Amino acid sequence: MTAIREIDPAGDFLVCEAGCVLEDVQNAADEVGRLFPLSLGAQGSCRIGGNISTNAGGVNVLRYGMMRDLVLGLEVVLPDGRIWNGLRSLKKDNTGYDLKQLFIGGEGTLGIVTAASLKLVARPAEKVTLWLGVASPAVAVELYTLFRTRLGELISSFELIAGLGVDAAVEHLPGVRAPIEGSHDWHLLIELAWSFDEGLLERAEAVIEEAFEREMIADGTIAQSGDQAANMWRIREGQSEATRNIGNIVRSDVSVRTSDIPDLVDAVDRFVRSEAGDVRILPFGHVGDGNLHFNFLLPFDNDSPERHKLLLNRLYDELDRRGGSISAEHGIGRMKQAAMMSRKSEVELDLMRRLKAAIDPDNIMNPGVILPAD
Amino acid sequence: MTAIREIDPAGDFLVCEAGCVLEDVQNAADEVGRLFPLSLGAQGSCRIGGNISTNAGGVNVLRYGMMRDLVLGLEVVLPDGRIWNGLRSLKKDNTGYDLKQLFIGGEGTLGIVTAASLKLVARPAEKVTLWLGVASPAVAVELYTLFRTRLGELISSFELIAGLGVDAAVEHLPGVRAPIEGSHDWHLLIELAWSFDEGLLERAEAVIEEAFEREMIADGTIAQSGDQAANMWRIREGQSEATRNIGNIVRSDVSVRTSDIPDLVDAVDRFVRSEAGDVRILPFGHVGDGNLHFNFLLPFDNDSPERHKLLLNRLYDELDRRGGSISAEHGIGRMKQAAMMSRKSEVELDLMRRLKAAIDPDNIMNPGVILPAD
Repeated sequence: MTAIREIDPAGDFLVCEAGCVLEDVQNAADEVGRLFPLSLGAQGSCRIGGNISTNAGGVNVLRYGMMRDLVLGLEVVLPDGRIWNGLRSLKKDNTGYDLKQLFIGGEGTLGIVTAASLKLVARPAEKVTLWLGVASPAVAVELYTLFRTRLGELISSFELIAGLGVDAAVEHLPGVRAPIEGSHDWHLLIELAWSFDEGLLERAEAVIEEAFEREMIADGTIAQSGDQAANMWRIREGQSEATRNIGNIVRSDVSVRTSDIPDLVDAVDRFVRSEAGDVRILPFGHVGDGNLHFNFLLPFDNDSPERHKLLLNRLYDELDRRGGSISAEHGIGRMKQAAMMSRKSEVELDLMRRLKAAIDPDNIMNPGVILPAD
Repeated sequence: MTAIREIDPAGDFLVCEAGCVLEDVQNAADEVGRLFPLSLGAQGSCRIGGNISTNAGGVNVLRYGMMRDLVLGLEVVLPDGRIWNGLRSLKKDNTGYDLKQLFIGGEGTLGIVTAASLKLVARPAEKVTLWLGVASPAVAVELYTLFRTRLGELISSFELIAGLGVDAAVEHLPGVRAPIEGSHDWHLLIELAWSFDEGLLERAEAVIEEAFEREMIADGTIAQSGDQAANMWRIREGQSEATRNIGNIVRSDVSVRTSDIPDLVDAVDRFVRSEAGDVRILPFGHVGDGNLHFNFLLPFDNDSPERHKLLLNRLYDELDRRGGSISAEHGIGRMKQAAMMSRKSEVELDLMRRLKAAIDPDNIMNPGVILPAD
């Protein structure tokens, strides 16, 4: 189940089997002059079926959407063994209920995806990768608004990283260098791209200059080579690996509105500093998506399951106040089930149970995932 | 139910009630420097609730997607009178089944949408509108591939119109002028846009020059003013109004893969010329979406319901051969129900019936729409 069955650059789609590794799909698109834009740390090993069942996100969501936005059609084995052939490659098809939506992000609880038709997009030619040191998440959001206004859809990634996490990467990841000098509380990694060969660099420089003049940036640099850009991405992608050297990490994957990011970070930071003195916040993530991997750093010698629970509950409380999500891109599975069940309205849970019962009445598909088994 | 409850340019969303007129939502976004990109002929009167329930398309789908791609959250009255509050404004939320997908394009058969959170995008600054005369749909698709490769996501619209339809617009729509001289079998109306103030015109000219050199274009022009661009759009938007002056029209709304458009047009044209001598094909639509309003022109004095049925059935047969859709953006309602029922697999119809029964067990929401009432 790893075949790419068809690829059509004029129609901007490819049809592949669920066992395809994401990177192989990216490469196949590249060979015909197109881009398959889903991009995430695990792309060398994760498979398309999993990307679909979990509605995967990653670093290009701002520009191209999540996996849900990239699926044109699906082939699915249903709980009763029948095969639903919804493997269409049409951009537009309003003939009845859009059944594929059930299985995208369904975490395997409604059926098993066996093949998919995926959307391809135009392949960028010039790419500009830049790194900025900023004082606070509030400034990061102001910069996002400025970049969005000036550069529009040319922004592929807009990633915020805590200074603590950047320092950890520079110290502990082999070969990684600090992109800018000095110590900064927060950093931004931004990637821009378009379909032309040249001209974007100058336009990016103009926006950075404007930001400097408006005193929004402390320091910044534009990658001068693929190697420098790769170094920047290594810091971002290596956050989990790097930070485990400096303490124990409590992980999360949350979202709020982009404009609520500064307030969320402040509120959680205040709590941590006042009530858990030896803990530090260590968020990184996708500013434009309102999605932070809002992690906490605990000392190696003062860690306990109770502390983890306390920190996450406190974070989730702050999300609840802002209409946020406790799982922006990682899904529910079993681990986040209790937290989900206590937050969703009875109406919403009832709708979810009805869907599950309608498609999988005997509860044989991943029972106990998303909804409790009984 | 016409209030815009909230608008957030940094978070790129607005929350409005279902009775809002589409154009009012577009204007509200514009006032804060953003774009709500759904754009269609009826935007001065159609309402957001209807746009959501029908998963509306329009002339910007190529760049920004259909209504489904623009909805962040929904408030819905369910068949049993309960209200589902799914009015989230998050870009990413993987907490369980994505229930809003049920109601988008559900044609009011599962619930009634009362409010929505809608995605905003960056507002273009420079816009380039151009008109090309081309020899065939095959050349139109080649040009689409060229433009896509050179200009990528900067293409907002890529519209094909039959020469017969353009001539009808020039002759019968008050004030409309021919964008280019002479007679052409096919025309393309293309719109490009980006967030910068200048520079796109020159880049568009370079692509047109390349197309001329490769002898893909017979004639072409770039709109030199807003008035000239509006004239071009009036021809496109006025196709229904204009062509009813030259004969009786049989309408459709179909889609295939973009690369199958030329072959589809040829096959239907061949049939029409050989078996219905006094009928002419009159398609227009969205090349990049693979979506044509594949209309037929009949003489005023030789028309009958049987002829309509014959032409549509023949068109649908050609779609079936190419995995196409009989309803790309207009939905099923009651009119296309029989054609849908005879085409969908038993597995797919069974899944659709299960969904309907799960959410609306008493069949009180728009009974007889999409699925038959009994």
